[in-house]
Amino acid sequence: MTQTDIPGYTYGTDAVPRSPVSLQELELLKATLLLGDEDLAALRRSGALLAPKVEEILDVWYGFVGANPHLLAAFSNADGQPDEQYLAAVRRRFGQWILDTARATFDQAWLDYQHEIGLRHTRRKKNQTDGADAADHIPLRYVLALLVPITTTLKPFLGDDEAMHQAWVKAVLLQVILWSHPYVRDGDF
Amino acid sequence: MTQTDIPGYTYGTDAVPRSPVSLQELELLKATLLLGDEDLAALRRSGALLAPKVEEILDVWYGFVGANPHLLAAFSNADGQPDEQYLAAVRRRFGQWILDTARATFDQAWLDYQHEIGLRHTRRKKNQTDGADAADHIPLRYVLALLVPITTTLKPFLGDDEAMHQAWVKAVLLQVILWSHPYVRDGDF
Repeated sequence: MTQTDIPGYTYGTDAVPRSPVSLQELELLKATLLLGDEDLAALRRSGALLAPKVEEILDVWYGFVGANPHLLAAFSNADGQPDEQYLAAVRRRFGQWILDTARATFDQAWLDYQHEIGLRHTRRKKNQTDGADAADHIPLRYVLALLVPITTTLKPFLGDDEAMHQAWVKAVLLQVILWSHPYVRDGDF
Repeated sequence: MTQTDIPGYTYGTDAVPRSPVSLQELELLKATLLLGDEDLAALRRSGALLAPKVEEILDVWYGFVGANPHLLAAFSNADGQPDEQYLAAVRRRFGQWILDTARATFDQAWLDYQHEIGLRHTRRKKNQTDGADAADHIPLRYVLALLVPITTTLKPFLGDDEAMHQAWVKAVLLQVILWSHPYVRDGDF
């Protein structure tokens, strides 16, 4: 975790409930994803490349979301109008998420915060953090599918380094899987 | 679909119920995955490379599952013994799945069969097709995570062709997302 002044960024604080996934289950999941020590090292190398480019990366990602009405819907109210304040609030945490992913801590505090992020995509917590009045959840299929645009558009920012790119694919897949927990029927995750 | 004599391979038959996902939703999902015409072409090119290698590929995949007790559990009974007949029956359909994925039809019959495949991973239909007595479901997290070992181990069989590999990553992600539908709470997919 990192001390920041980003509203709603609660990573590492008492406000984050314990993840229902154990550290042992996390290790088995990492093994299934072939996510090993070389990937952790590659992620950490990527941080130095990405940190100065966070705003540029977010411009690309927000451009993609903005160009796809079915994705922009997550940030839009019942009249279909995007909520600019909500978009801006999420953007700050999204930038911090890039840095946190590159840090690749993958410990209990990180695991707990992944569950919190997952909840914030679902009917249970969507909009609450920012007091927004947008769609009440993001369909899980889009949460999972965003793996591709996120990691594909990241590639040039990683200098087309294949080891770093693969590590990012694994790290983002690991996270969207953890985010899926609250979407899934009890006992089926 | 293809006429085969593979037991339980019901793709394109009346035995397969209609998918709850519409073709229009499939198109939006493909767009989110950046899965376009070049990917369909790359998948179809991959078929000629993969068809003569199906058994070799399955050897690699089964080797991975066999080396990971938390994955082999899907094929094991309450005593922890792997069911060899069940493994062999699934293997034949898994081989056909490689060819079907490379065909990249992505039409209504294909969409319907994806839902059927998803159901066969869950408590609703696991074991039924083969009359097996193994674990009653495969946790969704492993279904999703297998994207990485499947597409990574496929790479050499694709001659390390990056366009084909990326197309396979997108096509497998598309499918595991569709397979997740029966795992997800009503209305949240």
